[in-house]
Amino acid sequence: MTYDRQEILKKIVNKNDTKMILLVMDGVGDIPIDAKTPLMCADTPNLDKLAKESELGQTIPVLRGITPGSGPAHLSLFGYDPLKYEIGRGILEALGIDVEVGEKDLVARGNFATVEGDIVVDRRAGRPATEENARVCEIINSKIEEIRGVKVRVFPGKEHRFVVKFTGDNLSDNLSDADPQKNGLPIVFTEPTSDDNSAKFTAEVVNEFLKNLKEILKNEPKLNFGLLRGFSKYPDLPNFEKVYRVKAAAIATYPMYKGLAKLVGMNVIPTGQSIEDELKTLEEIYNDYDFFYFHVKKTDSYGEDGNFDMKVKIIEETDSIIPEILNLNPDVLVVTGDHSTPAFMKSHSWHPVPYMLYSKYARKGLCQRFDEFECAKGTLGTFYSIDSMSLILAHAQRLEKYGA
Amino acid sequence: MTYDRQEILKKIVNKNDTKMILLVMDGVGDIPIDAKTPLMCADTPNLDKLAKESELGQTIPVLRGITPGSGPAHLSLFGYDPLKYEIGRGILEALGIDVEVGEKDLVARGNFATVEGDIVVDRRAGRPATEENARVCEIINSKIEEIRGVKVRVFPGKEHRFVVKFTGDNLSDNLSDADPQKNGLPIVFTEPTSDDNSAKFTAEVVNEFLKNLKEILKNEPKLNFGLLRGFSKYPDLPNFEKVYRVKAAAIATYPMYKGLAKLVGMNVIPTGQSIEDELKTLEEIYNDYDFFYFHVKKTDSYGEDGNFDMKVKIIEETDSIIPEILNLNPDVLVVTGDHSTPAFMKSHSWHPVPYMLYSKYARKGLCQRFDEFECAKGTLGTFYSIDSMSLILAHAQRLEKYGA
Repeated sequence: MTYDRQEILKKIVNKNDTKMILLVMDGVGDIPIDAKTPLMCADTPNLDKLAKESELGQTIPVLRGITPGSGPAHLSLFGYDPLKYEIGRGILEALGIDVEVGEKDLVARGNFATVEGDIVVDRRAGRPATEENARVCEIINSKIEEIRGVKVRVFPGKEHRFVVKFTGDNLSDNLSDADPQKNGLPIVFTEPTSDDNSAKFTAEVVNEFLKNLKEILKNEPKLNFGLLRGFSKYPDLPNFEKVYRVKAAAIATYPMYKGLAKLVGMNVIPTGQSIEDELKTLEEIYNDYDFFYFHVKKTDSYGEDGNFDMKVKIIEETDSIIPEILNLNPDVLVVTGDHSTPAFMKSHSWHPVPYMLYSKYARKGLCQRFDEFECAKGTLGTFYSIDSMSLILAHAQRLEKYGA
Repeated sequence: MTYDRQEILKKIVNKNDTKMILLVMDGVGDIPIDAKTPLMCADTPNLDKLAKESELGQTIPVLRGITPGSGPAHLSLFGYDPLKYEIGRGILEALGIDVEVGEKDLVARGNFATVEGDIVVDRRAGRPATEENARVCEIINSKIEEIRGVKVRVFPGKEHRFVVKFTGDNLSDNLSDADPQKNGLPIVFTEPTSDDNSAKFTAEVVNEFLKNLKEILKNEPKLNFGLLRGFSKYPDLPNFEKVYRVKAAAIATYPMYKGLAKLVGMNVIPTGQSIEDELKTLEEIYNDYDFFYFHVKKTDSYGEDGNFDMKVKIIEETDSIIPEILNLNPDVLVVTGDHSTPAFMKSHSWHPVPYMLYSKYARKGLCQRFDEFECAKGTLGTFYSIDSMSLILAHAQRLEKYGA
């Protein structure tokens, strides 16, 4: 089957005054240790009560067996085909450190590196302190303002990482990585990967930047060069609010997720750092929007750390705000993850993601609690995350009949 | 979504030192008689124990409701889109009787037939003894060596069936069947189904062969002509070992399955006729490969015969080698079928196929035994067989994250 999901929805979506909440516990799915997953170990009276009033299922973020990054996993949940739309690594890195990216921008991930002559001897420049990184970025920004009419800025990340942003007309991201990938190899410059003038021009600008960088940093003992990877322009994504005819608010604490929400056209609402803060924000803005993306980050962070117990705790903390969310009386509340992050694996994984949809139109009553096994047997079955948006809109009675 | 699965996997697949075994019980899926399928009737302590340590699901070989032949069913399991790649019937027939087929070969299925004048009076020539068939094939091969530079050989099959192989440059399989399909109708010659010279030339060669055949066999009382169907050239399939970056061994007793494995580029390992022999082969070559396709044929054969009890016995025989397979300590072991062959139907069917995946990363613990009903409620859900390869590679930790 080949079709664009959003093209279909656009034709049948209506506005009404329903409210929809998509609560994403990042990486919540897990695999059992001693027969229990964190969701099974957690004391979650509110989620379990909700499960009895909801319809459950499990989602495949991209394809079975494919472990998604945060980009494709969120795109799917927002109803964008993750195999059609790609969010470049440069963009994600930029979003992750809160760098604004617009349509005229080209961004890339950078590593500060140590070179001796033309040889890269340390691709991570000895993993400098973040302050050291910031100091060098400031030097660069003070010495390079623009190259051939293209504005250049660098932004410090953690340790050796930085982001470079080029702003100008007619920039292209058809560029190869400027990175030898291994220590002990000579410096590599970028090359255009397409035949047009835009790519050639951009490659010249980037390479001139790299040569300037080498000159400017020649007296630095360690951070004396930069490697650039993942050149990416602002992706051209259909606008979430226009496709689904909603006013959409994003409540998230981490820059990358705010950035992803902004990329698709949601309104990112300033909030605090805790789940409680996010709840307060939701309550404050509840009358002003009709779709709410509510992101809980730390289920994933503790999964990545292999910290099973703290993942359990974050689930319990999320459970505790469910009554207040329900007090808002949403027409649809979905509780799910963007992907699984098993604590045992300390990484994202391909495992299906628990999914629970609460609505008065749900075919409720089969499942007793919210965990991987109950979701696996739920009436929604196993489905692709990209189906979530149409399920949400359907339960909000915003979708017209398809055909007569 | 429209994409080529293997193109995606190729970009994210890595090598490591894991071992993966795909154990295919041909046609193992069934439907219940007196509430029980052969898998449910069989005494399978080892498979059931494995089920508790595994993740279960059920697969759709091609599409729901579509009964697959062995070709598409196996292609799917090997991760090839069965709707994109077609293995011609001529090729399958040739593989089935162990005829080597190469890139310059064109093969077709043949029936020996009885003609009177130009009328086909018996399309199966009275179902001759296989020896009679072999005798006539020998006559043909001794009288016809080549036609217009194209080498011709015939190979006897069972009863009236044979395979003809044409070897030469520039042959085409765009040819209509040379078969009136019914008794009592005149002889039919092949016609090119495309407009190119290659198809025209090949049709001329084939028709000259048929005319020679009629002349050579004119004094035979019954086997005095041949009908040809399913002209096919060697299919151009991506190489299994290159796509998945594995060293792959195929252990199978029947020529067709060895042939299918060879077509996709696996190494076919000589083995004996029993499941025990196949196990021994697996043990002997275990260090030399990292992917193993292990084929058990007789679950299907007894299904086709309608022999429920013997199907049960073959399942039990397969169960008995599970401990020895586990002793090899594979990282991933999948036990499944290529399709269902319900004994009650005496034929392949469209029913989903039980699927069990054993790995330390499996979301195990929901299911108690290996049968159709437990698999239907498993955490892997219902999925297309084409997903199996990505699941196997994922559990072997051979797939990189998709996107950032």
